Amino acid sequence: MDAAQEAQKREAFRQAVVNTLERRLFYIPSFKIYRGVAGLYDYGPPGCAVKANVLAFWRQHFVLEENMLEVDCPCVTPEVVLKASGHVEKFTDLMVKDEKTGTCYRADHLLKDYCKEKLEKDTNLSAEKTAELKHVLAMLDDFSAEELGAKIKGYGITAPDTKNALSDPYPFNLMFQTSIGPSGISPGYMRPETAQGIFVNFKDLYYYNGNKLPFAAAQIGQAFRNEISPRQGLLRVREFTLAEIEHFVDPDDKSHPKFSEVSKLEFLMFPREDQVSGRQARRIPIGEAVSQGIVNNETLGYFIGRVYLFLSQLGIDKDRLRFRQHLANEMAHYAADCWDAEIECSYGWIECVGIADRSAYDLRAHTDKSGVALVAQEKFSEPREVEKLIITPVKKELGLAFKGNQKMVVEALEAMGEKEAMGMKADLEAKGEAEFHVCTLDKVVTIKKNMVSISKEKKKEHQRVFTPSVIEPSFGIGRIIYCLYEHSFYTRANKDGDEQLNVFRFPPLVAPIKCTVFPLVQNQQYEEVAKKIAKSLTAVGISYKIDITGTSIGKRYARTDELGVPLAITVDSTTSVTVRERDSKQQIRVNVDEVASLVKSVTDGVSTWNDILWKYPTHSS
Amino acid sequence: MDAAQEAQKREAFRQAVVNTLERRLFYIPSFKIYRGVAGLYDYGPPGCAVKANVLAFWRQHFVLEENMLEVDCPCVTPEVVLKASGHVEKFTDLMVKDEKTGTCYRADHLLKDYCKEKLEKDTNLSAEKTAELKHVLAMLDDFSAEELGAKIKGYGITAPDTKNALSDPYPFNLMFQTSIGPSGISPGYMRPETAQGIFVNFKDLYYYNGNKLPFAAAQIGQAFRNEISPRQGLLRVREFTLAEIEHFVDPDDKSHPKFSEVSKLEFLMFPREDQVSGRQARRIPIGEAVSQGIVNNETLGYFIGRVYLFLSQLGIDKDRLRFRQHLANEMAHYAADCWDAEIECSYGWIECVGIADRSAYDLRAHTDKSGVALVAQEKFSEPREVEKLIITPVKKELGLAFKGNQKMVVEALEAMGEKEAMGMKADLEAKGEAEFHVCTLDKVVTIKKNMVSISKEKKKEHQRVFTPSVIEPSFGIGRIIYCLYEHSFYTRANKDGDEQLNVFRFPPLVAPIKCTVFPLVQNQQYEEVAKKIAKSLTAVGISYKIDITGTSIGKRYARTDELGVPLAITVDSTTSVTVRERDSKQQIRVNVDEVASLVKSVTDGVSTWNDILWKYPTHSS
Repeated sequence: MDAAQEAQKREAFRQAVVNTLERRLFYIPSFKIYRGVAGLYDYGPPGCAVKANVLAFWRQHFVLEENMLEVDCPCVTPEVVLKASGHVEKFTDLMVKDEKTGTCYRADHLLKDYCKEKLEKDTNLSAEKTAELKHVLAMLDDFSAEELGAKIKGYGITAPDTKNALSDPYPFNLMFQTSIGPSGISPGYMRPETAQGIFVNFKDLYYYNGNKLPFAAAQIGQAFRNEISPRQGLLRVREFTLAEIEHFVDPDDKSHPKFSEVSKLEFLMFPREDQVSGRQARRIPIGEAVSQGIVNNETLGYFIGRVYLFLSQLGIDKDRLRFRQHLANEMAHYAADCWDAEIECSYGWIECVGIADRSAYDLRAHTDKSGVALVAQEKFSEPREVEKLIITPVKKELGLAFKGNQKMVVEALEAMGEKEAMGMKADLEAKGEAEFHVCTLDKVVTIKKNMVSISKEKKKEHQRVFTPSVIEPSFGIGRIIYCLYEHSFYTRANKDGDEQLNVFRFPPLVAPIKCTVFPLVQNQQYEEVAKKIAKSLTAVGISYKIDITGTSIGKRYARTDELGVPLAITVDSTTSVTVRERDSKQQIRVNVDEVASLVKSVTDGVSTWNDILWKYPTHSS
Repeated sequence: MDAAQEAQKREAFRQAVVNTLERRLFYIPSFKIYRGVAGLYDYGPPGCAVKANVLAFWRQHFVLEENMLEVDCPCVTPEVVLKASGHVEKFTDLMVKDEKTGTCYRADHLLKDYCKEKLEKDTNLSAEKTAELKHVLAMLDDFSAEELGAKIKGYGITAPDTKNALSDPYPFNLMFQTSIGPSGISPGYMRPETAQGIFVNFKDLYYYNGNKLPFAAAQIGQAFRNEISPRQGLLRVREFTLAEIEHFVDPDDKSHPKFSEVSKLEFLMFPREDQVSGRQARRIPIGEAVSQGIVNNETLGYFIGRVYLFLSQLGIDKDRLRFRQHLANEMAHYAADCWDAEIECSYGWIECVGIADRSAYDLRAHTDKSGVALVAQEKFSEPREVEKLIITPVKKELGLAFKGNQKMVVEALEAMGEKEAMGMKADLEAKGEAEFHVCTLDKVVTIKKNMVSISKEKKKEHQRVFTPSVIEPSFGIGRIIYCLYEHSFYTRANKDGDEQLNVFRFPPLVAPIKCTVFPLVQNQQYEEVAKKIAKSLTAVGISYKIDITGTSIGKRYARTDELGVPLAITVDSTTSVTVRERDSKQQIRVNVDEVASLVKSVTDGVSTWNDILWKYPTHSS
């Protein structure tokens, strides 16, 4: 199969999945009766149930298991917070406008489309040109506005719909802006991530945790991104649910007490070096990845392992899940290390979880902006002797020598690092003066011996004050769910072989409805048994669907296979019923009184279908 | 105790609750390190857990129990949807501005404050003036902008902070406005309620339900209200969680199959007539309220009963919960009936749940605006004969007679109701002509026999097409939680009687943490037992807090009583432990291996403390 056929096959598969999802209301394009809004989707009843199940499992797997502090902050966020975080300045995409109609496009998308189409369809491309276009595709994320503009002009790219000329690229901030209160003087934004709500609460949360590190806070909530022109259906949306963890840790000790519980796990990893040298992702035990220094530290490694367990238990195919390390140019300057859990679907490898060691960046940024110290203390069990550098500028002498520039010189002296200060001390002692470069004046001045005293003093310290590092696993819940749909979907022929039926092989944990209850034929006795079973299912907290229509049993099975319901109870007598498993289509016969607890034990994961299969008589329909 | 003392006592109680809530991070003023934003609050760890518990119970009690269709729609909403719903035009409060500083105030709040202060503090008020001010307070919600402005001017009310003059009142729309996409031509709003997302999906949901009525859809999510100047702390906020149900029902049959399950419930109701005639709320069985026509219909009554069960099971005090019917002037013109579940707290009686029969208003509004018919069909089991009125204007004759006005006359004829049309038919047959008032022309014209034919025809119909009525229970989750805090809070003296300790008597269902685990003294053996118990609690899904500090056991109990933790496990041997109940402070001795399942059975509500108390030896510390 060549690339074009592959692409066609992927497209057909995606269409089959998406059609089923939309027909069965897993999702609905939002405000459909008003012709919708690009990038906004509703979860319909089964989608909503899947989402609730995924979030409940997330809470169990992360928050409860690790005793995390869960918080819930508003979406509306004042500007000052997002100025501190850098979003007001940097959360942008480069945009071009159709110069006649004003329609907006993402500049990199247009360039990407152009290169891809050329490479796919232009059979006369020279080797040189081919290499150039491939290089452009690889560099796409690194281009500045000017470089993108030059390429677009150079290739003569025009607006896709009208062929009109395009404006130069300029940055568009992706936050939805609004105004808080009626005055119009308090700008606000809909948060682009939930993390900032946690950072600004660090001090209170640290106190709540008994002033101890490490600890993690977590938040599940809506986030917003005003995309320029959303594409990729359910994967690139303007409003989405994030589940984020901020794990605060001493930068000098990023070990994790439970690392041994995950260290043997082995899964596809794609380290930076392997990407650069053109190798494939490979299976590496996470313990080795940490000990070999591929993953920066144990805590980061621990979360990578936990994320792997989370995704695979949800039903993500392990062979289509990899952890890809950010390349140097992808990573923020402050980050210590960063890995994305990527899931392969019909759109390619999609980033679904980001796991980053963001160092002290976020807490420092809010400390600077707010003036509130977001720091931790380590109390020493006994005082420690430390050498401290003491720099004391003599302001009077400096004032006489530098007049109006005195303040800048004082600040520069105080800001000297240990090496520079000790060099100056040596010069002053040897020569009575020293040359000193003052950045803020951009010149070199002469410092005399009487202008500054420099010494090292031994001090007893009772504690150490520091800004914790943040390790952040951040989950795009909607993307995970979409990939789960693709990984769970398959078709099989019906009994007569004349029709393909759709099935979602959701694990019980995820399935929107855990079981169905069908009377085999319409009759009052069976209906009563069905209702009795339904009641006992509600009592044990199992979501079910009862179908008392006269539709053929085969059709009813097919309908619920399409919703991914794992078990179907068919009432064909008043004392016992059959239970059918979705994927194997095997059936067993169970007493009416036992059936609810049996269903519960399978859907809670206490037993598997195979565990119970041999305990009951099988039934063949 | 007089009114002022009462008010002081309420204020002191509120302060005690709020201090505890804030100190223990049940909530945190959002963005506190930046001095916060009025009307925005975070849920800290215990608050977040309480909220999750309340929502989980809501899902169990309503969605699962009634097989509702849960959906999840975006917060960002395009303008067209909120134009159809009326929010763009009418979701406003009247505002006045300080004419010098521009500070904004709610006009009715200033007037209310003025009247209240006068009534409380001015001892020289004439009886006439007193009556006037009381009348103003009663009418506050009904005043137009002009009336409010006249009162403010008349009383000489100025800006509270500066005493500057105030502008005339003008409407301020309470929706947070934003722009969807980069073009600036698609205005959007943050939804003020979740309901609209359900209404626009009616067609798909009806289909999903097998084209059958009644059915209910439900949604939990954030809603937004850009308050002019939020007061009342946690009760009036700019972003909040709503849980809404839209129950769609045939307007000709609002009976409910499960009404008998609630009809015997008796609780405080406050019908319109009792309010108008100055009576008190009284206990009425909901079955009687429906049969006597106090509550409009069974379905509305059913939901009132279910809401009562929901709130009282959460721990809301039944004596401080009442269902108040809207007065005629409070109710929208289209509503058939409307009741608020009001909970009494230190702020007075607070609306926490609204339960309204909104008739066909919402679906009709979206049908009109979108052009998509949001209707239901009732297929008749056999065709029914119905008499249909047929009006056929003869356009040629009408054109000759009325020329340019022909269109208006035709439309007016076609719009005639049955009575008017049959009257005209009689006139035409008796006299050959009839007088006819055409509204759009504002004149009376003469219709001749040859200009229109009017008849009644018998037709067989196979179905009936109609717009369903909507019965909407809408829950303000944050308000319910705040009232729950107040109703659960009490203080008691410590052992020595020298200090008051705070306790939240949350039912296990609501408690943020279900139990604590304490080693009695710091020693490795006990710590290991404690960790073993902790692990077994996680395994059965119980949230716990482990405290291995050396703090005295009394202090540790006090700390967790303040979080409302129902049970405390103290490890004082390696084989058995004590379990203490929060409110009674009773203790029993339980084997280490049994303790997790015992805690689970109490916190799941399978057993009560009293059920298990006699089964185990008591322990006195």
